[in-house]
Amino acid sequence: SGISTFAHLKHVKCLSERDTPFDIGIIGAPFDTAVSYRPGARFGPRAIRAASARQTSFRGFNPRRGLNPYSAPYTIIDCGDIPITPFDNALAVQQMSEAFLELGSRPPALVHSTNPKPKLLTLGGDHSVALPALRALNKIYGGPVAVLHFDAHLDTWHPAKYPSAWPSAQSDFTHGSMFWIASNEGLIINGSSAHAGLRSRLTGWEDYEDDERQGFLRISADDIDEMGTAGIVNAILERIGTETPTYLSLDIDVLDPGLCPGTGTPEAGGWTSREVIRILRGLEGLNVVGADIVEVAPAYDGRGEQTALVASQVAYEILTSWVG
Amino acid sequence: SGISTFAHLKHVKCLSERDTPFDIGIIGAPFDTAVSYRPGARFGPRAIRAASARQTSFRGFNPRRGLNPYSAPYTIIDCGDIPITPFDNALAVQQMSEAFLELGSRPPALVHSTNPKPKLLTLGGDHSVALPALRALNKIYGGPVAVLHFDAHLDTWHPAKYPSAWPSAQSDFTHGSMFWIASNEGLIINGSSAHAGLRSRLTGWEDYEDDERQGFLRISADDIDEMGTAGIVNAILERIGTETPTYLSLDIDVLDPGLCPGTGTPEAGGWTSREVIRILRGLEGLNVVGADIVEVAPAYDGRGEQTALVASQVAYEILTSWVG
Amino acid sequence: SGISTFAHLKHVKCLSERDTPFDIGIIGAPFDTAVSYRPGARFGPRAIRAASARQTSFRGFNPRRGLNPYSAPYTIIDCGDIPITPFDNALAVQQMSEAFLELGSRPPALVHSTNPKPKLLTLGGDHSVALPALRALNKIYGGPVAVLHFDAHLDTWHPAKYPSAWPSAQSDFTHGSMFWIASNEGLIINGSSAHAGLRSRLTGWEDYEDDERQGFLRISADDIDEMGTAGIVNAILERIGTETPTYLSLDIDVLDPGLCPGTGTPEAGGWTSREVIRILRGLEGLNVVGADIVEVAPAYDGRGEQTALVASQVAYEILTSWVG
Amino acid sequence: SGISTFAHLKHVKCLSERDTPFDIGIIGAPFDTAVSYRPGARFGPRAIRAASARQTSFRGFNPRRGLNPYSAPYTIIDCGDIPITPFDNALAVQQMSEAFLELGSRPPALVHSTNPKPKLLTLGGDHSVALPALRALNKIYGGPVAVLHFDAHLDTWHPAKYPSAWPSAQSDFTHGSMFWIASNEGLIINGSSAHAGLRSRLTGWEDYEDDERQGFLRISADDIDEMGTAGIVNAILERIGTETPTYLSLDIDVLDPGLCPGTGTPEAGGWTSREVIRILRGLEGLNVVGADIVEVAPAYDGRGEQTALVASQVAYEILTSWVG
Amino acid sequence: SGISTFAHLKHVKCLSERDTPFDIGIIGAPFDTAVSYRPGARFGPRAIRAASARQTSFRGFNPRRGLNPYSAPYTIIDCGDIPITPFDNALAVQQMSEAFLELGSRPPALVHSTNPKPKLLTLGGDHSVALPALRALNKIYGGPVAVLHFDAHLDTWHPAKYPSAWPSAQSDFTHGSMFWIASNEGLIINGSSAHAGLRSRLTGWEDYEDDERQGFLRISADDIDEMGTAGIVNAILERIGTETPTYLSLDIDVLDPGLCPGTGTPEAGGWTSREVIRILRGLEGLNVVGADIVEVAPAYDGRGEQTALVASQVAYEILTSWVG
Amino acid sequence: SGISTFAHLKHVKCLSERDTPFDIGIIGAPFDTAVSYRPGARFGPRAIRAASARQTSFRGFNPRRGLNPYSAPYTIIDCGDIPITPFDNALAVQQMSEAFLELGSRPPALVHSTNPKPKLLTLGGDHSVALPALRALNKIYGGPVAVLHFDAHLDTWHPAKYPSAWPSAQSDFTHGSMFWIASNEGLIINGSSAHAGLRSRLTGWEDYEDDERQGFLRISADDIDEMGTAGIVNAILERIGTETPTYLSLDIDVLDPGLCPGTGTPEAGGWTSREVIRILRGLEGLNVVGADIVEVAPAYDGRGEQTALVASQVAYEILTSWVG
Ligand SMILES: [Mn+2]
Ligand SMILES: [Mn+2]
Ligand SMILES: [Mn+2]
Ligand SMILES: [Mn+2]
Ligand SMILES: [Mn+2]
Ligand SMILES: [Mn+2]
Ligand SMILES: [Mn+2]
Ligand SMILES: [Mn+2]
Ligand SMILES: [Mn+2]
Ligand SMILES: [Mn+2]
Ligand SMILES: [Mn+2]
Ligand SMILES: [Mn+2]
Repeated sequence: SGISTFAHLKHVKCLSERDTPFDIGIIGAPFDTAVSYRPGARFGPRAIRAASARQTSFRGFNPRRGLNPYSAPYTIIDCGDIPITPFDNALAVQQMSEAFLELGSRPPALVHSTNPKPKLLTLGGDHSVALPALRALNKIYGGPVAVLHFDAHLDTWHPAKYPSAWPSAQSDFTHGSMFWIASNEGLIINGSSAHAGLRSRLTGWEDYEDDERQGFLRISADDIDEMGTAGIVNAILERIGTETPTYLSLDIDVLDPGLCPGTGTPEAGGWTSREVIRILRGLEGLNVVGADIVEVAPAYDGRGEQTALVASQVAYEILTSWVG
Repeated sequence: SGISTFAHLKHVKCLSERDTPFDIGIIGAPFDTAVSYRPGARFGPRAIRAASARQTSFRGFNPRRGLNPYSAPYTIIDCGDIPITPFDNALAVQQMSEAFLELGSRPPALVHSTNPKPKLLTLGGDHSVALPALRALNKIYGGPVAVLHFDAHLDTWHPAKYPSAWPSAQSDFTHGSMFWIASNEGLIINGSSAHAGLRSRLTGWEDYEDDERQGFLRISADDIDEMGTAGIVNAILERIGTETPTYLSLDIDVLDPGLCPGTGTPEAGGWTSREVIRILRGLEGLNVVGADIVEVAPAYDGRGEQTALVASQVAYEILTSWVG
Repeated sequence: SGISTFAHLKHVKCLSERDTPFDIGIIGAPFDTAVSYRPGARFGPRAIRAASARQTSFRGFNPRRGLNPYSAPYTIIDCGDIPITPFDNALAVQQMSEAFLELGSRPPALVHSTNPKPKLLTLGGDHSVALPALRALNKIYGGPVAVLHFDAHLDTWHPAKYPSAWPSAQSDFTHGSMFWIASNEGLIINGSSAHAGLRSRLTGWEDYEDDERQGFLRISADDIDEMGTAGIVNAILERIGTETPTYLSLDIDVLDPGLCPGTGTPEAGGWTSREVIRILRGLEGLNVVGADIVEVAPAYDGRGEQTALVASQVAYEILTSWVG
Repeated sequence: SGISTFAHLKHVKCLSERDTPFDIGIIGAPFDTAVSYRPGARFGPRAIRAASARQTSFRGFNPRRGLNPYSAPYTIIDCGDIPITPFDNALAVQQMSEAFLELGSRPPALVHSTNPKPKLLTLGGDHSVALPALRALNKIYGGPVAVLHFDAHLDTWHPAKYPSAWPSAQSDFTHGSMFWIASNEGLIINGSSAHAGLRSRLTGWEDYEDDERQGFLRISADDIDEMGTAGIVNAILERIGTETPTYLSLDIDVLDPGLCPGTGTPEAGGWTSREVIRILRGLEGLNVVGADIVEVAPAYDGRGEQTALVASQVAYEILTSWVG
Repeated sequence: SGISTFAHLKHVKCLSERDTPFDIGIIGAPFDTAVSYRPGARFGPRAIRAASARQTSFRGFNPRRGLNPYSAPYTIIDCGDIPITPFDNALAVQQMSEAFLELGSRPPALVHSTNPKPKLLTLGGDHSVALPALRALNKIYGGPVAVLHFDAHLDTWHPAKYPSAWPSAQSDFTHGSMFWIASNEGLIINGSSAHAGLRSRLTGWEDYEDDERQGFLRISADDIDEMGTAGIVNAILERIGTETPTYLSLDIDVLDPGLCPGTGTPEAGGWTSREVIRILRGLEGLNVVGADIVEVAPAYDGRGEQTALVASQVAYEILTSWVG
Repeated sequence: SGISTFAHLKHVKCLSERDTPFDIGIIGAPFDTAVSYRPGARFGPRAIRAASARQTSFRGFNPRRGLNPYSAPYTIIDCGDIPITPFDNALAVQQMSEAFLELGSRPPALVHSTNPKPKLLTLGGDHSVALPALRALNKIYGGPVAVLHFDAHLDTWHPAKYPSAWPSAQSDFTHGSMFWIASNEGLIINGSSAHAGLRSRLTGWEDYEDDERQGFLRISADDIDEMGTAGIVNAILERIGTETPTYLSLDIDVLDPGLCPGTGTPEAGGWTSREVIRILRGLEGLNVVGADIVEVAPAYDGRGEQTALVASQVAYEILTSWVG
């Protein structure tokens, strides 16, 4: 069939068709009205699915890990997209929160799974989709989770750091402050979380201080030059451990904009896909209970759809870890 | 100077620098979070300004009309952009409404002008920016105005025509329903307004019935094949007359998407720029008190910036009419 | 759901899932290895589906005709794509022929339909996909059909007109000679078929003579300047009548390449989408039993996906005629 | 062979290899340092040659005229490009003038030709290349020629109309004033020349007055709406007649920038390629002794190379007239 | 001259004009109908030639090696393209095989050359062109050669690994299985060949086992992180030695798709051009008897033609080695 | 305001409005008629300004250095562009020289500044703009300065190295020879200057010999593989010291064209933005008295404006050093 699902996976409209249990659900969050600069990530799910077209169960073996996520006993399906309003962010967050919660609370397909719940891999959408995801995980797992956050940006900014002459409660929710909100709501384990790939401008050192209060370790993009990918991996593993339930949130702008131009708030000096893949492969031991790949804005991508391609590869690496 | 103002006009941050009177103000409304499909019109003002770079007062004579808008006695300035939140549409509307009202209420630069108030030419932004513009005009002119609306779409849709499982008041405000809201608020003269260039799909004939209740004449894109540009002009002039204060609102998608691909909700079968320019030149007699050019989304434009170029030409034709 | 089917229609893998009857099936033919110049039409089905995303049953009413094809009693589904080898054209033709025959031979969904068989709307793919379609129709309808062919090119060229030092039987099958093969096989009613939009270079007048022997009327692109769209419509209706079972084959290159650049063998001087839509709307009376939209090569389209957009509009107009 | 010559014509480096006589020479003028806005036309010759790849002698028959220019008795070759400095316009003009003169002064290939001299079809380059071409024709034909000028712009501007704080003699030579210089030098027959497709802004009516003093008839882009292509043709034929030696100079910006975005100084509201082709085909009776196609700037063209495609079609129509 | 040959080299249509002996021939293979995903590499030769425009004999000195390949005593010419049918792969392979064999069997230009035969550098085209090249070399050198294969993919896949419901002999020949066919035909020295840059998904470890049976050493893209470019060079030199006649086959997708997006089956995580150039420069000692650069698909490249630029640089480095 | 100045800095037309003192002036040099290949850098200033839109004083803190250049006591303004003729390079150089001299000779804004003169950061334009900049600095500082030159190319070529059949004095001034002219004029301290990132083809070793006579140290792009960024930094610091008044000239083509495709003479194998940023941050100790960022040609950039983004980051790093 020529219909674009992620990696040609079976498509079930999970939200409305509730009969098909699954272990891993790919779900699109076509939402981009919480961005501060270039919109367009609402088409991220479509672009990532199209870029995954060469992924198939037939030739899906990952030699870096020695297994094929698509032929594992786990049931992986493409749940389609969450219907999300582009007009009212408060409503949008609610729509996403309920969708994530409902899907994530179902029993998994595999009875003897070590996973008590199905795992969701969200294709963004802007980064703010991580807030409803964390709200859902908090309820599903009965407490906060660690966040492993790949990004050029902190995204833990106090909402007031986006200055506005005319503040509004709804304006607090942005793709740069959703982790601050999440921390404030107690959704993130303070002390077990980490940023990786940071390199943006700041308001000042106080951004880092605030970030620390929220309990994040910071690994900057430049750190890789001294630590190598292995050093990054070790720092993360040491920070999070292999037991802590962890939400893996990857903003595609952690990659260099020369390689991944299709994003909204690009920052020069990022990581390469070779580096990011290596790091992800080193993190198999983490207990990742949910994940997202966000900020793919295809209108800014190249004709070769290089950004979406990296996003689909990241999804594949995450799936590899989940079934391995 | 290499700084991009519209047509190299003098730049004054009108909203904060209130000392410079003007007769015509170009003002950007970088807002696009009321769109139903492709966002990106927040960068419309930047693109239109860049595409106007070959317009100068030195060689600004319009031979179709026999005058140079930039060397007229009127003071035309580029007011920059209205600061608008991209996170909260309710707040955004308020920000725009107040900006339009404040700017439009000032005394004009030219004392003996026949215009009691300065005129604003808004560079959108998505089409919803017309609502705050109409709210401001209603206050400035003390009553409703006619609307001359160039568009492939009606934009008079009842908000409920955008179906949503979870309605919200804020979701009513979209780039397809702002004229419905305006009509409902009594901002539009029922019976003196007109659409030109219509060709979109509908929910059914009831869309037209609702549109008629709001008092619009409908000229479809196909009508030009029988009526010619002169017929279109006559129908509009007959509808609106030369006295009625009129808001001219031009959605760039009235042009064919093959010629103007840089827009969010393109519809095949549109008008050419030659046709649109001729129609605009035939409408000099209208009493246009405010205008906008909206829905230019440069991320979808060609490398030759052809869409923004047409938009800048439309602006030039409107300015020509205003000073002539 | 965010999965791209045509106009958000229900997706059924018709070829393997045979339980769902349908009246109209949209079927992709991702095949482009019979092209003489730019390949890439294998991604035509994906692009046309993506460009149809703003078509929904909710707002699918066609005001040019006064009905909504997606809310008609007919069952319209998206059958996905035919699996077609890109390596062996002989095999590919066989794969397509059998798929078209099998799908087209089923009983329709609507018992009291005037259509004895479901109708297929093929999204190409290069133009050669019309040959297997005609072979299937010949069997389904027990005889030849008329061909209404919108194209800049004749596509009735004798295979020997593509010169090759080393001829081969398989090389005879190209996107420029499939109608010659079809005529030779007796699949086309001689005397009832027509080309519309012709404007390519030729080998000489002998091309036209050969074309006439195959029984085509020729309407050139330039004819519209004298005849108008109404004249084109009349000429076609007079040629084909309203009874003759007709295959409508629309090569997107019938449109001007300035408007529809995303195609493989562009020819300057084509029709506009406004003209093509008008012509199609005038042809409602034809007895179209199958149709295709071919030669959309998205790698050459603009960022605004303007070519695919026209293709999706053409599909919509054909569907409108079919349910009307 | 895969080497890009125009229409796969034989390539001879005419300037250095003087043994091959020819009747018609295609010659590139990769020069663009006389432009006032976007440069890039130096790559026009490469782009036009690439876009001509589907033109061959085998299938080169022009049905609009009934002949194949590439199989005529005339020898048509691709002379390659003139070597032109991009650093010093005074030198560049000299290089082009001498090349045009030397090539155009040779005896033609066909002994009994009615053409005393070979004809050159120049692929620009910016429009200023017409000045050296006219200087050469003046010497070759022993007097001034008529100019038939397709363009959105007059190009007869007095150099002082490009204002500069610091004038310089070399700055007088631009792509907007080369016809003024040519008129001043007596290269153009006053009273027999014509512009077609005009629509740019002016400094004022004085531009037209100056243009009239130079002896041009002005046909604006909008005139086609009343006159049709036939009216345009008649006006031109009446102006120039069929005897006057004429230089045909076609600036690609005469076409609408929506259709031909790949140019440097685009003006909305232009002609379509269908219109331009029709006009050119109506002008077969002119005595065209030299021609150029200029201002194709491929960096601004679409992926479908639509602008270069039109340019290559225009070249084909001119060649058709020349051999017919 | 403005005609695009590789590096402005002299153009001879070698296949038909047999009088010009040469030591090194650049030859285009515009063939892409053996690809499994995006076609378009048929325009690779044109793109690579255009991107080589800044290579000249005048400034052709390679400081990494200390010589200028274009001023060496060797005769290097651009042979143009092999005429290849796009309709019948069996015929196409035959056309290429005979062309490679005929050209490669001629005496070289330089009498006292250490090369008994001229060397061909093929500009692809998809990767399958390596099969006819190897068939020709087998005949010219009287036995198998080693293959040094830069690629993200193995390309030694058993044809059955591309599953098809309907197998056909012709479908066995693809850009992913041509080395399997070559190995099976005894064209490749088992034990002396190597892949470099591997990183694709597999069907399973059996792909590697099959690859080993064919005698390849595998160097993955990730290996460079531990071994460095020097380690890669050493591993290759150790594997192949400096005597073994070797075919160097470089699939442009060995580079990262962020840097080289213009290719058909991109894989994230590739090498940079700095790395590839360094490796190539370290391999001067190899006895390379033929080479190709394949899978450049310009329709997916950036506006800056960055992919074709790398390909032209790779060609330059290979030429440097050949004349050094 | 939506008017694009660099980093939203205050705009003053410094050349004509002389009342506003400044410490650092950003000044555009929209000049590109000294390029040897692709023009288009005249739009570099516009593109870099647009790409700087996310730089603001509010969030302008550079964590790599620990300060915010936009909130320092220094007055940084955007001076707009120098008016430069595109028609006459001799005049253009004069226009730039006088502008640089006049602006650079003014007293700075900050009375107690250690800088006796304001510093100019030029946004090119092609690289030749460095010559007028150096001429101005020579007068302002009363002697030659060191040049720290990031580039793939030497740009110290003797003008005769660009061969021309017809030499002219004006042709000597190019973007490849401006440092040769500067050296000849005694503007560059012999022995204290350095190139970084070299990797182009040469005419031969004599290019290096000539370069040495001009007193440059050469660091090639490949050197970073052995030396690392720290090694590069040390070599530069050792060469130039921390006292020598230095002109920092950064050609964007020092970066890899895969990452920064928007430039005119790209060379494969360049540095990444991560590497370049690290090197710049290591060079804070230099006494940089003027700087440029040149050769950004946005027509060749990607949709994600990745090249201009790196240029704006480089500007930010230079500003950081200047205020630190
Ligand atoms: Mn983020
Ligand atoms: Mn981010
Ligand atoms: Mn609208
Ligand atoms: Mn609209
Ligand atoms: Mn066709
Ligand atoms: Mn066709
Ligand atoms: Mn012109
Ligand atoms: Mn022009
Ligand atoms: Mn390969
Ligand atoms: Mn490969
Ligand atoms: Mn340079
Ligand atoms: Mn350089």
